[in-house]
Amino acid sequence: MDSEQFRDAAKGAIDEIATYYDNIADKSVLPSVTPGYLRKLIPESAPEEGESWETIQSDIDRVVMPGLTHWQSPKFMAFFPCNSSFPAMLGDMYSGAFNAAAFNWICSPAITELETVVMDWVAKLIGLPDAFLSQGEGGGIIQGTASEVIVTALVAARERVIRRRLSDMPEGEEKLDAAADLRGKLVAMGSEHAHSSTQKAAIIAGTRFRTISAPADNGFSVSAASLRKTIQECEAKGLIPFYFTATLGSTSTCAVDDLAGIAELAKEYPDIWIHVDAAYAGSALVCPEYQHHCPPIAHFDSFNFNLHKWLLVNFDCSAFFIKRRKDLIDTYSITPSYLRNEFTESGLVTDYRDWQIPLGRRFRSLKVWFVLRSYGVKGLQAFIRKHIALGEYFAFQLKTRQDLFQVTTDAAFGLVTFQVKPAPPSPSGGQADRPNPRHEAWTSDFTPSGEAQWREDCNAVTKKVYEKINSQGEFYISSSVVCGIYIIRIVSANTAAEEKYLQMVFERLVEAAEEERGGKA
Amino acid sequence: MDSEQFRDAAKGAIDEIATYYDNIADKSVLPSVTPGYLRKLIPESAPEEGESWETIQSDIDRVVMPGLTHWQSPKFMAFFPCNSSFPAMLGDMYSGAFNAAAFNWICSPAITELETVVMDWVAKLIGLPDAFLSQGEGGGIIQGTASEVIVTALVAARERVIRRRLSDMPEGEEKLDAAADLRGKLVAMGSEHAHSSTQKAAIIAGTRFRTISAPADNGFSVSAASLRKTIQECEAKGLIPFYFTATLGSTSTCAVDDLAGIAELAKEYPDIWIHVDAAYAGSALVCPEYQHHCPPIAHFDSFNFNLHKWLLVNFDCSAFFIKRRKDLIDTYSITPSYLRNEFTESGLVTDYRDWQIPLGRRFRSLKVWFVLRSYGVKGLQAFIRKHIALGEYFAFQLKTRQDLFQVTTDAAFGLVTFQVKPAPPSPSGGQADRPNPRHEAWTSDFTPSGEAQWREDCNAVTKKVYEKINSQGEFYISSSVVCGIYIIRIVSANTAAEEKYLQMVFERLVEAAEEERGGKA
Repeated sequence: MDSEQFRDAAKGAIDEIATYYDNIADKSVLPSVTPGYLRKLIPESAPEEGESWETIQSDIDRVVMPGLTHWQSPKFMAFFPCNSSFPAMLGDMYSGAFNAAAFNWICSPAITELETVVMDWVAKLIGLPDAFLSQGEGGGIIQGTASEVIVTALVAARERVIRRRLSDMPEGEEKLDAAADLRGKLVAMGSEHAHSSTQKAAIIAGTRFRTISAPADNGFSVSAASLRKTIQECEAKGLIPFYFTATLGSTSTCAVDDLAGIAELAKEYPDIWIHVDAAYAGSALVCPEYQHHCPPIAHFDSFNFNLHKWLLVNFDCSAFFIKRRKDLIDTYSITPSYLRNEFTESGLVTDYRDWQIPLGRRFRSLKVWFVLRSYGVKGLQAFIRKHIALGEYFAFQLKTRQDLFQVTTDAAFGLVTFQVKPAPPSPSGGQADRPNPRHEAWTSDFTPSGEAQWREDCNAVTKKVYEKINSQGEFYISSSVVCGIYIIRIVSANTAAEEKYLQMVFERLVEAAEEERGGKA
Repeated sequence: MDSEQFRDAAKGAIDEIATYYDNIADKSVLPSVTPGYLRKLIPESAPEEGESWETIQSDIDRVVMPGLTHWQSPKFMAFFPCNSSFPAMLGDMYSGAFNAAAFNWICSPAITELETVVMDWVAKLIGLPDAFLSQGEGGGIIQGTASEVIVTALVAARERVIRRRLSDMPEGEEKLDAAADLRGKLVAMGSEHAHSSTQKAAIIAGTRFRTISAPADNGFSVSAASLRKTIQECEAKGLIPFYFTATLGSTSTCAVDDLAGIAELAKEYPDIWIHVDAAYAGSALVCPEYQHHCPPIAHFDSFNFNLHKWLLVNFDCSAFFIKRRKDLIDTYSITPSYLRNEFTESGLVTDYRDWQIPLGRRFRSLKVWFVLRSYGVKGLQAFIRKHIALGEYFAFQLKTRQDLFQVTTDAAFGLVTFQVKPAPPSPSGGQADRPNPRHEAWTSDFTPSGEAQWREDCNAVTKKVYEKINSQGEFYISSSVVCGIYIIRIVSANTAAEEKYLQMVFERLVEAAEEERGGKA
């Protein structure tokens, strides 16, 4: 394909993509394909001779489209969103054109420098403490996902505590043995509701892992007392807690751990690296009304949020801010002869390869720069506030039907979680004479067994309603289990979200709940 | 930006990108900016109000372009290439449009299924043993970079050996303690010329690391005997070798370790995970004349090569093939309640999140599919063979000037490495009466001190010539040090490579060598 053919092909593709977005709300959000559908549609190996673009492009509709889940549809309300935007797509087009494995400064100075400056823009935008700006000892880097960030932080934390504890030992086998002994005693920690990425990171780092209790009566949030209890339990066993993921917006319910309390506690434990995972909810910090969460972060070591979730930057783009970049470089910097160059050795430049697991990197700051400039601060605030208001609207709708629904966690950052209530026993039922544990659940006078039964029934009917909605394919929603409670999660933060779609999904939920409960009341 | 504005903006961007490629050979490959250039060109924070696309786009020329290193220029001959192609860019455009964090099958079945099938295409294309195809126990996955792949393999290897050794122990604290003790004894290994990513992966995994000797007189390649020696030394110290990166095309010289000999050795050490890193040279396996390297790989655990280096797929795209996918899943699979779904639980689908460190993933198979179909097998073979022939042409040129240059490693996979010879002593020099060690180097009758001096002079003049070429900015080349030898590396595998550019860089090298040696002979 020469550059003239590319001009034609790419302009045709742009038209197809724009049309896809124009019509996305009309599509069924979930595909109806069954596992293995695609293999039957294409040959078993690559063609011997090259094919024309027309042939290839026509297979997008034939092969790919039937198997897509449409994350950009306003009817996608599952997980957290993965918002795209046109300015971000333009950024990725240029990034692809300037294709490079930009692992150090001289490999493409613009790629490094724009990232440094734009990450400073992002830090200021969300009100992060100044310690995380690049002009001091900290700075920001774009990594792929929150999972990648958390491994990067957790491994750096592991090596930092070992360096500190063994700083008096000379290098050599004896020190390696001592380091191995220490590594075996290290414990990483995260809320019982923290994303599974912290547990996975501990597996990768080869350390132990403990969850911190975050019960329903504390809003599923980790208190400083709860964290302290686990730290003390570990220490009593001769183990060394070295890392904690504090959560700003948990996956299941958008709970926020007690950051201020934990910041106080952190002063007593300077060897514990505290990372704040704000993967989804961090985007809300563009609005001043959420920036009261930020001051305690000054006492922590690192912070991340995913612009690819709720800030209009196409996947992948996780912003990782570090208070002392030396904490990363001391672990990740290796400079073999083929990577040496005068700029790196001058100490005047940033080589982001030393802040991350991979060596090469894409030009991801371009799409961030385009999005921040296209929307402006006010545009981004309006975008976030709209979704937060839609979440409140949806929670309000649920409360109009307290006969059917029970809100588990109220609208928070555009997420509402709830349960479907089980049907009350029929007043004319044949068992009216006998004590009915289900009946008790509809009174305020629970017996312990009545309450347990009610909870079980509630979980069961909630799961059925959840499955019914997804099986219809029109809307895509997700569920979770927190402290034994089976919840449905509705997220109103999709780029294309509108009140009418939340109204529609509410109506489907009412229908499904009434059906599952055995017909309209 | 609405979809109509996007159509206009994107079509304008396509024209700019095509024009960039049309004129790329005329640009200076290296930028002339100094560290910190970019911060002065843009504001200190994001704008309050959104800006127009015209304003944003004009900053690409003003802010970004001056700081780019042009990896797609035919004058970029450094490192290994990072080739782009128009079909791959089209793939990325659609991938961006179908934006999703496709962490499991139901999140977008087409994203998972196309990847599985296209990775099978790739495995067949490069003649990988059938054990790496998805329809048995193995399969392929696209990860970002070889570094990421190697961490993924090395950590899985660490956990596999622990699982095997502790399979009889019940779960519990005692087993965790035993696992910690074992982890402390584990040793990862790689050639002394393996890419630094293996050492970095061992740091991340928290294991020890040993390099395996690969001397010049063995072509910088690891022999089975050399690997056995290190294994035995580790075992004698009570350590446990558990992982080895075998290299197919080392970074400095494109050396290939003795895969057949190592495959024999591997039978004696079934607990050592052997990974083949063919990051760059793996692309040559599309040509049958290189597939004799493949049969021994059947005895190893995993293999990777980067389609983003030499196979026309834009960065990032590292193909990772595994013989027993269970070896990955047993380490990486964690399924919290919010990720459970009927498809995953059916066991009929692949959830690639369990094969990798991150959770979310992009739709990268689309660009691979487009490239394989646009070029066809024959087109890709012609592409590789052209670059290999250009490497041979360049080595031939060097050999026409044996007065100036000494080839260190002959053309291999489009890479030639060489040294510049130091100037002979002037015959009319004032020191003709005294024994001159430099003079001896120009006879076949070296004394040990004469040889050492010659080597030192050779390294010094080679480094000067290397620095001179890069300081001119017209060509970008790289250097390395192997077994004490300072070499210049010239890579002829850029998409736009042509004989005339290799001729031009040869002329610049001759000029620079003659200048550094004190004028023409």
